[in-house]
Amino acid sequence: MAPMTTAGEEMHALVERLYPLCRSITGDGVRATLDIVGEYVPLQVHEVPTGTQVLDWTVPQEWNIRDAYIADSAGKRVVDFAASSLHVLGYSVPVSATMPLAELRAHLHTLPDHPNWVPYRTSYYKPQWGFCLAQETLDAMPDGEYEVRIDSTLTDGHLTYAEHVIPGQVPDEVIVSCHVCHPSLANDNLAGIAVATFLARALAEQTPYYTYRFIYAPGTIGAITWLARNAGRIDRVKHGLVLACAGDPGRLTYKQSRRGDAEIDRVLRHVLTASERPHHVTEFTPYGYDERQYCSPGFDLGVGSLSRTPYAGYPEYHTSADNPDFVSPEAMADTLAVCREAFAVLDRNRRYVNLSPYGEPQLGRRGLYDALGGRSDTQQAQMAMLWVLSLADGEHSLLDVAERSGLPFDTVASAADALGAAELIKA
Amino acid sequence: MAPMTTAGEEMHALVERLYPLCRSITGDGVRATLDIVGEYVPLQVHEVPTGTQVLDWTVPQEWNIRDAYIADSAGKRVVDFAASSLHVLGYSVPVSATMPLAELRAHLHTLPDHPNWVPYRTSYYKPQWGFCLAQETLDAMPDGEYEVRIDSTLTDGHLTYAEHVIPGQVPDEVIVSCHVCHPSLANDNLAGIAVATFLARALAEQTPYYTYRFIYAPGTIGAITWLARNAGRIDRVKHGLVLACAGDPGRLTYKQSRRGDAEIDRVLRHVLTASERPHHVTEFTPYGYDERQYCSPGFDLGVGSLSRTPYAGYPEYHTSADNPDFVSPEAMADTLAVCREAFAVLDRNRRYVNLSPYGEPQLGRRGLYDALGGRSDTQQAQMAMLWVLSLADGEHSLLDVAERSGLPFDTVASAADALGAAELIKA
Amino acid sequence: MAPMTTAGEEMHALVERLYPLCRSITGDGVRATLDIVGEYVPLQVHEVPTGTQVLDWTVPQEWNIRDAYIADSAGKRVVDFAASSLHVLGYSVPVSATMPLAELRAHLHTLPDHPNWVPYRTSYYKPQWGFCLAQETLDAMPDGEYEVRIDSTLTDGHLTYAEHVIPGQVPDEVIVSCHVCHPSLANDNLAGIAVATFLARALAEQTPYYTYRFIYAPGTIGAITWLARNAGRIDRVKHGLVLACAGDPGRLTYKQSRRGDAEIDRVLRHVLTASERPHHVTEFTPYGYDERQYCSPGFDLGVGSLSRTPYAGYPEYHTSADNPDFVSPEAMADTLAVCREAFAVLDRNRRYVNLSPYGEPQLGRRGLYDALGGRSDTQQAQMAMLWVLSLADGEHSLLDVAERSGLPFDTVASAADALGAAELIKA
Repeated sequence: MAPMTTAGEEMHALVERLYPLCRSITGDGVRATLDIVGEYVPLQVHEVPTGTQVLDWTVPQEWNIRDAYIADSAGKRVVDFAASSLHVLGYSVPVSATMPLAELRAHLHTLPDHPNWVPYRTSYYKPQWGFCLAQETLDAMPDGEYEVRIDSTLTDGHLTYAEHVIPGQVPDEVIVSCHVCHPSLANDNLAGIAVATFLARALAEQTPYYTYRFIYAPGTIGAITWLARNAGRIDRVKHGLVLACAGDPGRLTYKQSRRGDAEIDRVLRHVLTASERPHHVTEFTPYGYDERQYCSPGFDLGVGSLSRTPYAGYPEYHTSADNPDFVSPEAMADTLAVCREAFAVLDRNRRYVNLSPYGEPQLGRRGLYDALGGRSDTQQAQMAMLWVLSLADGEHSLLDVAERSGLPFDTVASAADALGAAELIKA
Repeated sequence: MAPMTTAGEEMHALVERLYPLCRSITGDGVRATLDIVGEYVPLQVHEVPTGTQVLDWTVPQEWNIRDAYIADSAGKRVVDFAASSLHVLGYSVPVSATMPLAELRAHLHTLPDHPNWVPYRTSYYKPQWGFCLAQETLDAMPDGEYEVRIDSTLTDGHLTYAEHVIPGQVPDEVIVSCHVCHPSLANDNLAGIAVATFLARALAEQTPYYTYRFIYAPGTIGAITWLARNAGRIDRVKHGLVLACAGDPGRLTYKQSRRGDAEIDRVLRHVLTASERPHHVTEFTPYGYDERQYCSPGFDLGVGSLSRTPYAGYPEYHTSADNPDFVSPEAMADTLAVCREAFAVLDRNRRYVNLSPYGEPQLGRRGLYDALGGRSDTQQAQMAMLWVLSLADGEHSLLDVAERSGLPFDTVASAADALGAAELIKA
Repeated sequence: MAPMTTAGEEMHALVERLYPLCRSITGDGVRATLDIVGEYVPLQVHEVPTGTQVLDWTVPQEWNIRDAYIADSAGKRVVDFAASSLHVLGYSVPVSATMPLAELRAHLHTLPDHPNWVPYRTSYYKPQWGFCLAQETLDAMPDGEYEVRIDSTLTDGHLTYAEHVIPGQVPDEVIVSCHVCHPSLANDNLAGIAVATFLARALAEQTPYYTYRFIYAPGTIGAITWLARNAGRIDRVKHGLVLACAGDPGRLTYKQSRRGDAEIDRVLRHVLTASERPHHVTEFTPYGYDERQYCSPGFDLGVGSLSRTPYAGYPEYHTSADNPDFVSPEAMADTLAVCREAFAVLDRNRRYVNLSPYGEPQLGRRGLYDALGGRSDTQQAQMAMLWVLSLADGEHSLLDVAERSGLPFDTVASAADALGAAELIKA
């Protein structure tokens, strides 16, 4: 794996490549996005036809757009989709008309508090059309007639999502999920896509214990579609993480699963605390990203969500100010590092049974007192062995051991490996 | 229901009417009290004969008193029952004698620390006679002979208590209990009687979910009698509240049930906290009012106790200073308001099951996004629906939802109503 | 029992008698120690042959030593075992040789940071020889040839340990364990031996509820041997306490059992807190004294450990500075007092069932209101009876009652005795 600074820059480059594309919950923008991601990690792309029933929902018509603009009476484009995919209300129905500004206003969305930012708006399930523009732009538009044109199609087609699977030693799965439906927004969620992709590359460097499944899907309807189509193997999903807003300058935020005490929750809390990074852990709320779906009470999966500044917590959220300048290589590298640390813990965190549980086994006879290198390390390693033996009762995990003993997880896991090799414990 | 200020004044007027009566654990004072309460809410009055075995106790003889006094050698009454029912030791046996002050002193009770207050004393189960008087009065009594006379009767008769029942939608019951055995004491417990009575009137305005049973009974022996005579339907009692000391100027005190985590405990804690009233929540102790009986380990009912300043916590307690001036319309109105808020929560607090628990149901399709009025209300209402759906797993109550979400209980309960109407959840 | 100050002095005298003996995990030093302890309490001494398999371990060869020294070229003993048993590395194999200081150095152990202290070192399971001496002594040794001689034997023999049992009313056992393998070290563990011995004498003054078993055994291998030989009756061991470092000037430290909520843990926490002694309660760690063995996961006994300054927590630890001057009569008397208070609670701490659980029983009728002496005592005693009745549900112990009520344990236990005599509760 490349060093972190390099990974940060590569992730930022990926964000910049993906930025111009007009993604939505369906359509060619998603496909183009997955094509590019597919250059980094092999993807299995799924196309689900319009009208397919998915849980309580139905896959909607596919939306595509070629061009859109508002032109003034001189024919000059004052708002142009070519300049930014944000300029069109997502899922706008086609329109081609000339109308006075007074009438047009009902279809215009601005941010008066941030007069030079363009908002991001959609209307997936209620047929509408509209434009998003800077308040400054609107203020500069004289009264008069405007030509408005949205060259979009809303037709039966498909919803597109992709998976990348890293086979593990066991079929039990960890899912990592990110949404791919937002157009030109960098933190929400191109940074999440980039971190997920580079995390996948890192995990594939050696065969992990768990099977890791990366899901790139449009928000809400995409996760619901994935859940509907994978009902038969949901039981295999033991842990999961939703990645979003992974690149802004804020401190890290881990939002716990609905359960609150799922193993992923404990792992993230442990890693964030042990790493002494500034961070924030929040309770589950049924709002946010696709943890909403994975944690719905029928599934109630152990899926948390990792962000930097969370959902709607920064002024740039859902505006043109969430652009590639808003996300940094360093922040994405940091998010990636936490993910790698967390999955390194999760992947080794098991419960053991002491095979010699009556009194302490004689470690010296087995060479487990001398076999362990440098001095203070040795002492820690020996304490770790005693702690693992003490708590190897089938109920305590290695993470429990690390937290109760105050020893680093890695030291504890290495002690477990040594004890396992000596046949003193078994998983 | 009348506005609170009016209710406060009406309750105070009731306290003043009841104040002069000489109540005890049996006798005509209790009957007269129940007659007056019966003008406000219909009462079913029970008469239980002397000698009836009730749990570990026996209904005692009935005590009645017509007159009592201490007269000096000039025949002047220096202590006169007609002036205050407190002047006679409760359950005094009859006496008619002349004796020197030195001999009389053994029968006199005063409060040296509050020389112008008259204490309240009783001797229910050990035959005695006595007078209670101000220390000042005693100090002014010259040595010499005094005529003492207590014209009381202690004969086989009845113990009297009453019930008022508000039928609910289900036979499960909430009991509200207050003691009616204290003579001329306003806070302890005429204020409790008044609040209970006006609470009953308020609850009867619409059919509540639970059946509410108001119990007006003498302390200890009365509650024990009620429990003994209702053994067969104790199982129906799901929640309960003992009301006492409901009108003094102190902050509210909720004493938790023996269980400590009964639903009534959680409801009162929630309502007192959410209302931002100054208040105090205390652990259960096996001393105090009739929660002692309802919470005895054989019953262990979810019955808490609401007071303002609790049992024995104010100097006026069990003295002539606990008179109608000590209780205020405002304090009683405030206690009543908390009771109403608490029962409004308790009455709607149910566990629901999400009928569409896999992923989020599509609320928009069901009109549950638009159907909800003004802007910030709408946002709260939508969040409340997501929270209810998320926690509608048969384990979490609406109170759990309110506490976890931080949303007002009423908003949560309304969301549950809307979701129930859409057949997305069921109780 | 002698008053505490006397007991403190007697314990200190015992420490001084035992101090010169050269104890190890086997050998005559242990036997001589048990002979002396046997003058205070009768001991059953066990001899377990070399080679006996005990759990995962094997009883080692027996080590004995008659003499040892380093003599300079003039024949002068510069290090002499006769001066202190610490001078020889424990379990040193015999040696008789002459060698230059340069070669000898590899066998010498000093404490450079405390140049006039002699360290304590052993090598039980790896055959070695060595001397421990003050750094000052070493610094004063000129280069040149030295005669070294260790007149020790390491042969098949026995491991020696002893038990003292105080029969109780029930066969359920409390074990009190101390290690007897350390040579001339006062706090670790002659003070522990002394406190255990005087505790045994105190407990024998009346028949306790539990059967108390005192175990005097070498550390680790001795406890393991005891456990191996008593596998069939480990189930009887309900509680236990390891005593070590019982005489230094530091505050008391209670180290909880592995369970953390064993009854012994709750009792010690309660007694230490209630007595308002400065103290420290620590979590279990799988290092320290023989609680390591008793609390190994296969046994997981409710055994805690009481020390003053704990294991390795003082600079004198495992050095010649841990001599009889380091331990005081007052400190040992204080440790003994806490043990006695704790076992007084443990021995009376039972769960009761209320035989009249529906409502309060009428205490007055049974004379339980008057039968109880002085005024404020009476009030506490009556409250204690109400508390015991309230919590006598078979789930709450008297210690629970004491902690929930805030009443002294003794008051609660006396109330339980009175209620038991009145047949209102039973254990």
